[in-house]
Amino acid sequence: MFALSIDMGGSHVGCAVVNDAQILSHRSLDSSVTTSLESLLPAIAATVRELLSQAGISAADCTGVALGFPGIIEPRSGRILATLKKYEDAKDLDLSSWWKDYFGLEVRIENDARMALLGEHYAGAARGIRDVVMMTLGTGIGGAAMMLGRLVRGTHGQACLGGHLPVHYRGRACVCGNIGCAEAEAAGWSLPNVAREWTGFESSALADAKQVDFRTLFRLSTEGDPVAMAVKEHCLAIWSANVVGLIHAYDPTIVLLGGGVMKSAEIILPHLRRHVAKHAWTAWGSLDMRPASLPDTAALLGAIPLLTEEIP
Amino acid sequence: MFALSIDMGGSHVGCAVVNDAQILSHRSLDSSVTTSLESLLPAIAATVRELLSQAGISAADCTGVALGFPGIIEPRSGRILATLKKYEDAKDLDLSSWWKDYFGLEVRIENDARMALLGEHYAGAARGIRDVVMMTLGTGIGGAAMMLGRLVRGTHGQACLGGHLPVHYRGRACVCGNIGCAEAEAAGWSLPNVAREWTGFESSALADAKQVDFRTLFRLSTEGDPVAMAVKEHCLAIWSANVVGLIHAYDPTIVLLGGGVMKSAEIILPHLRRHVAKHAWTAWGSLDMRPASLPDTAALLGAIPLLTEEIP
Repeated sequence: MFALSIDMGGSHVGCAVVNDAQILSHRSLDSSVTTSLESLLPAIAATVRELLSQAGISAADCTGVALGFPGIIEPRSGRILATLKKYEDAKDLDLSSWWKDYFGLEVRIENDARMALLGEHYAGAARGIRDVVMMTLGTGIGGAAMMLGRLVRGTHGQACLGGHLPVHYRGRACVCGNIGCAEAEAAGWSLPNVAREWTGFESSALADAKQVDFRTLFRLSTEGDPVAMAVKEHCLAIWSANVVGLIHAYDPTIVLLGGGVMKSAEIILPHLRRHVAKHAWTAWGSLDMRPASLPDTAALLGAIPLLTEEIP
Repeated sequence: MFALSIDMGGSHVGCAVVNDAQILSHRSLDSSVTTSLESLLPAIAATVRELLSQAGISAADCTGVALGFPGIIEPRSGRILATLKKYEDAKDLDLSSWWKDYFGLEVRIENDARMALLGEHYAGAARGIRDVVMMTLGTGIGGAAMMLGRLVRGTHGQACLGGHLPVHYRGRACVCGNIGCAEAEAAGWSLPNVAREWTGFESSALADAKQVDFRTLFRLSTEGDPVAMAVKEHCLAIWSANVVGLIHAYDPTIVLLGGGVMKSAEIILPHLRRHVAKHAWTAWGSLDMRPASLPDTAALLGAIPLLTEEIP
């Protein structure tokens, strides 16, 4: 079964033509230059036409378009209810009509974290597993859960806001309006604030870094910078609490960890595993925690399961 | 449809004969004197016989026995996997055989918080609603969730451990092994520790109280005791963070609040509602948060839905 798959990331838009669990053609568009989705539509249309031609099929051969979006989606209507600073104009665009007009195809829009979990369940590390939690460490902290083989969506398509579980009830303000969310304490967007507020920041090598991101943080920590080490420990403690919260909420068979920050899996995973083994209440035994297996393509490969899913 | 229903609470065991959503006969046994379930079985058997006779039916008329237990239950086998200091011997008792031998009936064992939610869904405040979260404030903090009309149980029957979402990642040790669980920060069992550690406790009226429980805390707070007021604010802040975590995890249609502490609903509910309205990320509108409607009988009324449920 052929489909178009679009993954709207914060800095890139992935576009692909898929055939079941196979990517036939693929291109990534730079979206860092704009926060408007409308301004990207011409480039997306041109790219999709080229990818279809590369794959040797036409739009009419496709079942539909699956579109992963970083925001809150009402799953039945596909309406975008909320965005987080990126693609704010998407709420007012009629994407259904646009895809219909340009390609004659129905579009189904889903939250990007949920689409990545669908992909991992369909073709990756969660294949054949009914109860899965996926946590995505990146600019934000994405969360998605599957129970009994179905995506957890909740009444209004919000579940699960995994990175917005409060783990520090007197903590920092989050972009979502809440206090002390894991994301407000240890994610790509909040890290510079967390670091700058740390005692001793001014005399730390972090203060000289061009950009305070996790790559820099982990590097300086390895080099022995004491503030970098302390901030790293803080982030690991936040992620640990967040994972335990997700385990206690859903009791999954496995937890998948994805996202760009997991490029440092060798630092993160052993710490989280130790913490979970020691602190999660898993009376039945010990929990399987794995890196996601399709870091770049999971959301794109979520297209077929999304387009063929009946939403209850 | 007739059934026996047993609700094993920390200080009482509720026993009832039910007919669908109606309680035909009912008695509460004091269980505060013992931590052993085995020592209670003779009294439970005698009570059940009396209740059957009062109801004018025999055990053979009953579909089965529903037993709510404060611990972690493997839902398919009914095996008790973990207890929290109360009825520790239950793990080694063959309750199935006991009910079979004494009453000729099959027993289905379920976590008490989940059974209460089944009761509220069947006959109370959650009737007709598919996505529900219930939070029970008492000796511990119980949590149960229903999605698409089915209880959330997770792979090993642990979900949801609602009171064990960490809301203070550098907080107090919890009986479950985790750090900073809502329950470790603001529940019946942890309140005395929290209060005693509060700066100024020694000169507070709390220090003279015979028992530091929520009734005393709320009374002294109303009377203007500054430590009681501060501890009360702490507890409300913890519960608020916990509720937001549950909303972000499940995106329910409603949140029900139950448990003995909700006898002070006029203090608790307005605070939680204000906090959720301000801080929960509910892009779709505002969340309906209600007191549970069957404070004493919800778990008992969970019997029929539990006994007739097919567990996937």
